[in-house]
Amino acid sequence: MSGVVVPIEGGNRSARSSVEPLFNLVSADLEQVNRLVLEKCGSQVEMIPEVARHLIDSGGKRLRPMLTLAAARMCGYKNGENHVLLAASVEFMHTATLLHDDVVDESDMRRGKLAARMLWGNQASVLVGDFLLGQAFRMMVDAGSLAALDVLSHAATVIAEGEVLQLSTAKNLDTNEDEYLAVIRAKTAALFAAAAEVGPIIANAPRSTVSAFRSYGANLGLAFQLIDDALDYGGSSAALGKNVGDDFREGKVTLPVVLAYRRGTDGEREFWRSAITDGQNDDSRLLEAHALLKKYDALTDTVARARHYTEMARDALGPMKSSDHKDALVEVLEFCINRAA
Amino acid sequence: MSGVVVPIEGGNRSARSSVEPLFNLVSADLEQVNRLVLEKCGSQVEMIPEVARHLIDSGGKRLRPMLTLAAARMCGYKNGENHVLLAASVEFMHTATLLHDDVVDESDMRRGKLAARMLWGNQASVLVGDFLLGQAFRMMVDAGSLAALDVLSHAATVIAEGEVLQLSTAKNLDTNEDEYLAVIRAKTAALFAAAAEVGPIIANAPRSTVSAFRSYGANLGLAFQLIDDALDYGGSSAALGKNVGDDFREGKVTLPVVLAYRRGTDGEREFWRSAITDGQNDDSRLLEAHALLKKYDALTDTVARARHYTEMARDALGPMKSSDHKDALVEVLEFCINRAA
Repeated sequence: MSGVVVPIEGGNRSARSSVEPLFNLVSADLEQVNRLVLEKCGSQVEMIPEVARHLIDSGGKRLRPMLTLAAARMCGYKNGENHVLLAASVEFMHTATLLHDDVVDESDMRRGKLAARMLWGNQASVLVGDFLLGQAFRMMVDAGSLAALDVLSHAATVIAEGEVLQLSTAKNLDTNEDEYLAVIRAKTAALFAAAAEVGPIIANAPRSTVSAFRSYGANLGLAFQLIDDALDYGGSSAALGKNVGDDFREGKVTLPVVLAYRRGTDGEREFWRSAITDGQNDDSRLLEAHALLKKYDALTDTVARARHYTEMARDALGPMKSSDHKDALVEVLEFCINRAA
Repeated sequence: MSGVVVPIEGGNRSARSSVEPLFNLVSADLEQVNRLVLEKCGSQVEMIPEVARHLIDSGGKRLRPMLTLAAARMCGYKNGENHVLLAASVEFMHTATLLHDDVVDESDMRRGKLAARMLWGNQASVLVGDFLLGQAFRMMVDAGSLAALDVLSHAATVIAEGEVLQLSTAKNLDTNEDEYLAVIRAKTAALFAAAAEVGPIIANAPRSTVSAFRSYGANLGLAFQLIDDALDYGGSSAALGKNVGDDFREGKVTLPVVLAYRRGTDGEREFWRSAITDGQNDDSRLLEAHALLKKYDALTDTVARARHYTEMARDALGPMKSSDHKDALVEVLEFCINRAA
């Protein structure tokens, strides 16, 4: 089962190693999560497990459910399986989002495989996503914590809001950094925050601990998304390679583009408009985009912005008692940044 | 009238000079603001102008109204006095907040003078604050822009919410950085954001310009407050001197304390509890606090955090056409950081 943790594209060797302590600490719990995830994909409607497992077996990192498991254990959660139920819920919420995202973005590929919608169609992708979201809520109910249900159901709403908000920023080069942050705060950071927060909640940790984990998760989520954005242009070294330029070709306005656009000349802004808004985005244009990102330090500054958030996340956990789990969660922050280094 | 712009405590020479370009550009408009402010303090109830002018004449920087004036001019506002009316509203909202703050914090001093409440009492300070807030709204109405009214009235609510939220973080060392940011986002950044945003609004600038100025103001406001927090402990050089340690003696949990507390040992956290929560805060304890702030880079990192926000503010204005006003607004960002350098 350890095969589900795969190195992320763009990661260097030290980056690869530094999520391992977390994985090793929660691996027994994570196996239970994986078993539960497979079980809850099941349905008499055959297409449902087919579509769901296509994505679930495709090498996701399980980072979000690992946060839930580690946070619960770190806060002393011992008796019961509720951390497993909530971690599986978090993974289903994430999977549902991906299925819906691919429909919204009209993506062909996901994690190096054909997107589910290319094999089973948009309708199946939307509806199986809904099924997984329903299953996620059922597992939350099984876990029996109204406080955790409150946090995760709130996150579900915020994520959907974030996706809708993203429609308004799509191909819109007027988007500024605060507006972009509002999108990823909702779209990505909300689930990281909720995943980390429900751990201390079911462990009956004090309010300040719950809040610290929430802050850790939210800031890790922001950094994670910003690093993803930088990686999509080859990371801070701007190395061209496979999987580079997807956001560019899809006309996504991510932070590297926001920075290069806002720092550029009028002529350079004209280039971005033709590329992002008007879709003139062939490989020669991608090269030109790369040159502009480099000229304006847009990738290195995206990584620097991400580091601001990982530092906030690290300080959030500061007062927590020393433990292997704490060390592993702090190491995830380095892992996150190193991916783009 | 230029006497109202005084160098801020803790500023070094380069810091002193760099708000001047902004002042010089708006000085004619600012004189009108000052005249209007004095006029609108007037009342048949004699105590009102006495209390109000005590604070208004005490050497405030007029930074917030200058943002409104510069933003309006930069966006091409030409005919009319509405920028002056809104700038004066912004200054009154700020003044009202200060009067109320001193009552809530039981402060003795404000800008090197006795606080109004020490001379006229708490009741007068609260009520004159309310009067100024009322006058602020009347001037907004006179300016006749419903969109500007919407922005400023929303800010008034958010500021009050922030002050109430602050009550819950007062002397509470469990406050984490995200929670502290929520307070200063409301308490300080909201008015900076609104002050900057109403300029382009009355100039009928496009939505993206309005949003860019809002982002500039909000991020400048965050940085401004963080630098104030660092200055209260002597800035990043942690130089002890006059006006140092007020926050410490009042048991305020500001970012330097949040960072030092979260990064410290259990024993050091005990020190902070005795100092901040239990009020053991004589000068020998202030020295100890200083040593801990230094040990954990809490002041330099507070300044680094502030710089993150000034960089966001700078990028927000990026696409605006080059102009003296733009240069001056960007220079204010450096001024802000340099104060604590």
